Amino acid sequence: MKITIAVDAMGGDHGCRVTVPAVLAFLEQHPSIHIILVGQPEAIAQTLGNSARKYGDRLAILSATEVVGMDESPQSALKNKKQSSMRIAINQVKDGAAQACVSAGNTGALMATGRFVLKMLPGIERPAIAKVMPNIIGHSVVLDLGANIDSEASHLLQFAVMGSMLASALLHKDNPTVGLLNVGTEDIKGTPVIKEASELLKASGLNYFGYVEGNDIYKGTTDVVVCDGFTGNVALKTSEGLASMVNTFLRGAFTKNLFTKMIAVLAYPVLSDFKKSVDHRRYNGASLLGLRGTVVKSHGSADEIAFGFALQQALLEVENRVIPKTAEKMSEFQQKQESASDSVQEAI
Amino acid sequence: MKITIAVDAMGGDHGCRVTVPAVLAFLEQHPSIHIILVGQPEAIAQTLGNSARKYGDRLAILSATEVVGMDESPQSALKNKKQSSMRIAINQVKDGAAQACVSAGNTGALMATGRFVLKMLPGIERPAIAKVMPNIIGHSVVLDLGANIDSEASHLLQFAVMGSMLASALLHKDNPTVGLLNVGTEDIKGTPVIKEASELLKASGLNYFGYVEGNDIYKGTTDVVVCDGFTGNVALKTSEGLASMVNTFLRGAFTKNLFTKMIAVLAYPVLSDFKKSVDHRRYNGASLLGLRGTVVKSHGSADEIAFGFALQQALLEVENRVIPKTAEKMSEFQQKQESASDSVQEAI
Repeated sequence: MKITIAVDAMGGDHGCRVTVPAVLAFLEQHPSIHIILVGQPEAIAQTLGNSARKYGDRLAILSATEVVGMDESPQSALKNKKQSSMRIAINQVKDGAAQACVSAGNTGALMATGRFVLKMLPGIERPAIAKVMPNIIGHSVVLDLGANIDSEASHLLQFAVMGSMLASALLHKDNPTVGLLNVGTEDIKGTPVIKEASELLKASGLNYFGYVEGNDIYKGTTDVVVCDGFTGNVALKTSEGLASMVNTFLRGAFTKNLFTKMIAVLAYPVLSDFKKSVDHRRYNGASLLGLRGTVVKSHGSADEIAFGFALQQALLEVENRVIPKTAEKMSEFQQKQESASDSVQEAI
Repeated sequence: MKITIAVDAMGGDHGCRVTVPAVLAFLEQHPSIHIILVGQPEAIAQTLGNSARKYGDRLAILSATEVVGMDESPQSALKNKKQSSMRIAINQVKDGAAQACVSAGNTGALMATGRFVLKMLPGIERPAIAKVMPNIIGHSVVLDLGANIDSEASHLLQFAVMGSMLASALLHKDNPTVGLLNVGTEDIKGTPVIKEASELLKASGLNYFGYVEGNDIYKGTTDVVVCDGFTGNVALKTSEGLASMVNTFLRGAFTKNLFTKMIAVLAYPVLSDFKKSVDHRRYNGASLLGLRGTVVKSHGSADEIAFGFALQQALLEVENRVIPKTAEKMSEFQQKQESASDSVQEAI
């Protein structure tokens, strides 16, 4: 299968300066992948130089005259930026010219445009943002990280289906375990929505583990952690804040005086080994799930290496058929519900 | 003012083995403070040895025949454990024999018993759990951390009042800034409850900063961070999980082989300097706010040093009159509301 990824070359804080070199490195690493760079041709050409020729038809440039601002409202992006690099990149997925789109542009606009252009998968009522996060024994998929601010039990169930399919693809787990984020693990804990979602998950046929707590995200208790977008967003940003504080304190301790600086030089290989294990660039790439097409959001401030990981994530999702598998699972659900409702009607 | 703290000697994973030595160290450090140790006299005597005599009437032992189990339900503790060390310690505060109670026992039972015995402060509808948390520039008070699983806007306002009074006392801030935890800082972000709470906070006369996000907890953007108990609990436990993972990875990097172990020996003073800055024992002590009495919850697994910090927190709350100040502020609010409602009636 020929796989093409449409890249919003203009998105993010650094635009082409990051996206173009990341794409070139990616083409080098993946000799069968095609890329469509979407954006202002002059800006792209400037960072591309003569490298384009080397990749022949594996690298195409598609002109887009507009750019969605990082602070622009989703409504404005949808209405006023029909020629934006983001919109045209997503259009490529809709038209079948690409199998995935990657953008470091504004999340709200990407979500709204993705939803408007690609539409939702049958049975999925709300899109969700999912990320792979490191834990003490490996990795897990956490969602929703902020696409929704409130969620009903049925939405949480749909997030669990989407998260399971993503975990299969990205973590290579056949039957990933699913935890529902709560304030305790006892049955009596949680809001009515959480309790209802837990019942739906028990009956879902997914590999449901039960309730998990915030610390379980980093303990790796389950392969998938499901939560509403408000809680997930706070958990993610709290983690970012804590990681940044720890980093600052660690740097502070090692740069306190001449003695500690000498120790830092000696400890450099050990410290970089440690830093690699928690390097946020390796976890760049949030999947916008629930759409009829693969869309991966890179962090706006991503550098070339981080953007490469977002491209990698898009590729894995396509290769592992996350969207068709999610659609199949949702259709199984609907058939079950219909047959259940048929039996009820017959009984009446 | 004579200050007496009633200590649930039996609470927590370690009971007297932790609480008694911590109390002795505390009596040594604070020559004017009195302590009532509540629990099984034999168990207390065993760890106390001959030390009691030294403190004369500053250390009293009060017999309690029962202990609340760490997994016991709040209902069972309330109904069946009227002679528990936890219940009798709280009774001391109600009866005026002590000004504060500290327990490492089960949180749900402590909250339920505190609420039942001490009752709520006028104007406060829900109790809240608050903690001092470290940030990159100092400390902040975060609440609610799990006393409630859902909160109305008026509850969030009440948490803000209680959190401000606690921040004044523990962080020595005259007019602490208050942030409302949300998924973004723009006005359009958040649930209807959050938006309504923000309007109440704007009109409250508190030093309201506006919306903050998860990372602001550790950036130290505001002195107080207000959230509902579900979100706060997830943020706290996620932080605990991440801190534990970072610790494991750091230890792993320094114990990988003989070379890294040698580096670890050299770097020991630097690493312990770093660890001190994030030592969770220094942040032990969660305040149960909203009650007509000071109650501080220590972590169940706290060691002697950590339990000492919980005792310290109780003392600071009493010395700085957190409860009377909260009651005054709430009464101001009610007067304002009454006069506002009077003007409305006059206008009609």
